[in-house]
Amino acid sequence: MFENMHAALVRLRNNKSFEFFVIAVIIISALEIGAKTYDLPPSALLVTQYLDVFITLFFLIEILIRFITEDKKKDFFKSAWNLFDTIVVVISLIPIDESEMALLARLIRIFRVLRMISIVPELRILINSLLTALPRLGYVVLLMFIIFYIYAAIGSFIFSDINPVLWGNIAISMLTLFRVMTFEDWTDIQYETMEVYPMSWIFYMTFIFFTAFAFLNMVIGIVVGVMEEEHSKERNKGQPSLADIQNQIASLSAQLSDIQQQAKNKR
Amino acid sequence: MFENMHAALVRLRNNKSFEFFVIAVIIISALEIGAKTYDLPPSALLVTQYLDVFITLFFLIEILIRFITEDKKKDFFKSAWNLFDTIVVVISLIPIDESEMALLARLIRIFRVLRMISIVPELRILINSLLTALPRLGYVVLLMFIIFYIYAAIGSFIFSDINPVLWGNIAISMLTLFRVMTFEDWTDIQYETMEVYPMSWIFYMTFIFFTAFAFLNMVIGIVVGVMEEEHSKERNKGQPSLADIQNQIASLSAQLSDIQQQAKNKR
Amino acid sequence: MFENMHAALVRLRNNKSFEFFVIAVIIISALEIGAKTYDLPPSALLVTQYLDVFITLFFLIEILIRFITEDKKKDFFKSAWNLFDTIVVVISLIPIDESEMALLARLIRIFRVLRMISIVPELRILINSLLTALPRLGYVVLLMFIIFYIYAAIGSFIFSDINPVLWGNIAISMLTLFRVMTFEDWTDIQYETMEVYPMSWIFYMTFIFFTAFAFLNMVIGIVVGVMEEEHSKERNKGQPSLADIQNQIASLSAQLSDIQQQAKNKR
Amino acid sequence: MFENMHAALVRLRNNKSFEFFVIAVIIISALEIGAKTYDLPPSALLVTQYLDVFITLFFLIEILIRFITEDKKKDFFKSAWNLFDTIVVVISLIPIDESEMALLARLIRIFRVLRMISIVPELRILINSLLTALPRLGYVVLLMFIIFYIYAAIGSFIFSDINPVLWGNIAISMLTLFRVMTFEDWTDIQYETMEVYPMSWIFYMTFIFFTAFAFLNMVIGIVVGVMEEEHSKERNKGQPSLADIQNQIASLSAQLSDIQQQAKNKR
Repeated sequence: MFENMHAALVRLRNNKSFEFFVIAVIIISALEIGAKTYDLPPSALLVTQYLDVFITLFFLIEILIRFITEDKKKDFFKSAWNLFDTIVVVISLIPIDESEMALLARLIRIFRVLRMISIVPELRILINSLLTALPRLGYVVLLMFIIFYIYAAIGSFIFSDINPVLWGNIAISMLTLFRVMTFEDWTDIQYETMEVYPMSWIFYMTFIFFTAFAFLNMVIGIVVGVMEEEHSKERNKGQPSLADIQNQIASLSAQLSDIQQQAKNKR
Repeated sequence: MFENMHAALVRLRNNKSFEFFVIAVIIISALEIGAKTYDLPPSALLVTQYLDVFITLFFLIEILIRFITEDKKKDFFKSAWNLFDTIVVVISLIPIDESEMALLARLIRIFRVLRMISIVPELRILINSLLTALPRLGYVVLLMFIIFYIYAAIGSFIFSDINPVLWGNIAISMLTLFRVMTFEDWTDIQYETMEVYPMSWIFYMTFIFFTAFAFLNMVIGIVVGVMEEEHSKERNKGQPSLADIQNQIASLSAQLSDIQQQAKNKR
Repeated sequence: MFENMHAALVRLRNNKSFEFFVIAVIIISALEIGAKTYDLPPSALLVTQYLDVFITLFFLIEILIRFITEDKKKDFFKSAWNLFDTIVVVISLIPIDESEMALLARLIRIFRVLRMISIVPELRILINSLLTALPRLGYVVLLMFIIFYIYAAIGSFIFSDINPVLWGNIAISMLTLFRVMTFEDWTDIQYETMEVYPMSWIFYMTFIFFTAFAFLNMVIGIVVGVMEEEHSKERNKGQPSLADIQNQIASLSAQLSDIQQQAKNKR
Repeated sequence: MFENMHAALVRLRNNKSFEFFVIAVIIISALEIGAKTYDLPPSALLVTQYLDVFITLFFLIEILIRFITEDKKKDFFKSAWNLFDTIVVVISLIPIDESEMALLARLIRIFRVLRMISIVPELRILINSLLTALPRLGYVVLLMFIIFYIYAAIGSFIFSDINPVLWGNIAISMLTLFRVMTFEDWTDIQYETMEVYPMSWIFYMTFIFFTAFAFLNMVIGIVVGVMEEEHSKERNKGQPSLADIQNQIASLSAQLSDIQQQAKNKR
């Protein structure tokens, strides 16, 4: 009887309709979260509370089905996506009723929307490809951080008396520089310091050039990286390599040598 | 006699001058629409009214000629461009005289300018290539929507009491986040929430990084996609593939084996 | 004697030091133009007047030398750069002393700085490559203009009563939309119209998406175009094509057939 | 004994732990600089003073070890990185105690953070690749400077009476144009001049197009340049070239000719 149930669960898990139902529940949970940001009448609030219980239970059952139908129980948590799903489900099981923690409970439920990514395979592939691009960017990000740190230190030393709100300490200065990098009202900041230090436009202009330059390099780094991979993938797709052809020609040459040898032997 | 007229219409349709005349009428209709946005003297208004009637009739006749000269009448509406042209012409035929609907009538006439795209082949190719790129972007757009939705929900839960105009509900929050993504006065929003939650810069900075990252991926996705197609197109342009060459060498090898066999037989 | 002078002029024109001297005079004329934007003491003003006469005469002499030393006088004006140089020199020869025209005289002299581009070969190559990319962009620019025109017409019809300064007529509306495309205080415009038409954010958001999309396509169009050219250039650089190799193998096959034929004949 | 010490120093220099310790000291010096931008209690200030002495001495010792263990003493300063390290260390040795120079002393110490780049090999590679891209950009930057200069001169001549703060002289005008290029409140500047010269939007729009166009070309220049290098690197990685294969086939043909010759000789 247990085996029958196991087989039924496997059938259920592999069922396309079941997958669509899971996606539907995720979308409903997302809409419910959105609805809660509006002022709802008491009756609608009650509906969301029942919905909450239903969604929590449904996700619990779904994850249990996925765990039970997994052949190797140990491998289940090796998948980062399974781990993520389980954590989201388990945390939302914790009963939080106190008014103080209500905000936290809401925030945790928002992350259920991320389950959309773990369910839709195309999104999972997209995220994986973004994650593989990340380490490549690591050192560029480190370089940009060093540039930010040095400029923030200089800015904080020189400009802190002019406007402590923008240049008070190194942390605030880095935030201000991030604002300069996004070109958001940066000339207001520049004109303010130029009244005291007329040459301070050099500070802003070199900063913009360095960060834009580093950013450019980042973009190019990714583009070139992605393209190289795509090219090498395509090359291996059925098409023989030049080295294959070279080997083929070499074996032709061996055949010819054999014929030459025979011709000589006959003479 | 009917056949003579049909042949005359086909000649007319294929006439280069006729095509240029159609383009000229489209440009005139565009200029007329532009002229209506200015305060016109009564005499000029009268001219635009006569022009309106002329343009509507001309477009009707032109689409009829195109329909009559089509060999397979059924295929005419299979072309999305023909369908678009017909709908625009038919809708502008509906007489709208009431003052309330005047705005709608004007708006519909604006879409006549889009007929420029359906007439000029180069623009049609451009739009087609843009449309083929669209599905590729679908999942990236979905991913960006999920990021927007989660951040909008968080922002709405935490910041709605600080400024309901910007964070009142999830729809308003998404609009505010779109504003943040375009870097438009985003620091004003940030400084406002930082007065209550000093660490809220994390919210904005991570959001900017995620959306910029997703956008970058979008750009690269298109670039790589377009390039792959261009490359494969070019490869098929007369140049043999490496597999072709491999086959050629293989037939050489067969010829050689034949010679070797003959040599053995002779011995 | 005339021939001696001609040869001397040719030597002068081809002299590297002469070229550097011309560049130096162009830089001096640029600095002079810059200096005039400051409030100068009368003595310095006198210097600039003498400088003006010297620069005008020097450029006249230089262009005469280039014309005299040209072998085929007819071809001299076929070069767009020579034509440009001559026009700039001739116009700056016209004596403009009236105070009203002083501004125009100054503006014409600014274009002398552009002679820098016609003198430095690397800049000339850069400009030429930019110009060859232009026609490729033509239809994308036309498409963007159509998008701008339609949105400007819609905006002018609907929003002109809300703020005539921004949406008064189609020309003003296009300027406003260009401002929206550069993300410059576009939310101010949006919030203003959203008070009357709450759904007008759709207008702005679709506009931003369309223009950003068209712009992206423009960038990719150039990148792919430039790359294709670079690739094909490189391919022709010594490396044989696959078709060459195919021909080579075909001639091998002919040789083999010949051998096979001989072997048969012998039997 | 000296040789023993030398060998010990070489072992120390090549020790991975030593390298990590150097990196740790650089990070500590960076944190110390950051800490100084906050208002510190006297006790913490004392700690930073002792830290300063320790860091200065440590860097001195480290650079001495690197110099002593260098085999060819002359080559030590040929490396730009060694030169940079030595200069930073030597300058920070100069005792600056006067309050006036305190700011300068602090600024110099900030550059110690840049030693991070000279220590971490991946960052050094990144900087080197950025530097090799620089000359390629040289002429594009020159072209952009010419565009800026001409527009600044025109702007200064025409608009200086409207707003001397923005267009007072050519230097201020170039700063204003840089602001326009970053789209920072550029419409405010435009609307101001359009009140006097209604057609002045042409000035701003052409400027934005030219600089955006030049910038685009810059980006493409780098992308294409980097990609060409990457491609040629990859091509040389083990894969035979088409020319190699052509040579191989040519030698096959020679073998065949030999066989044909033998067959003829026999007859």
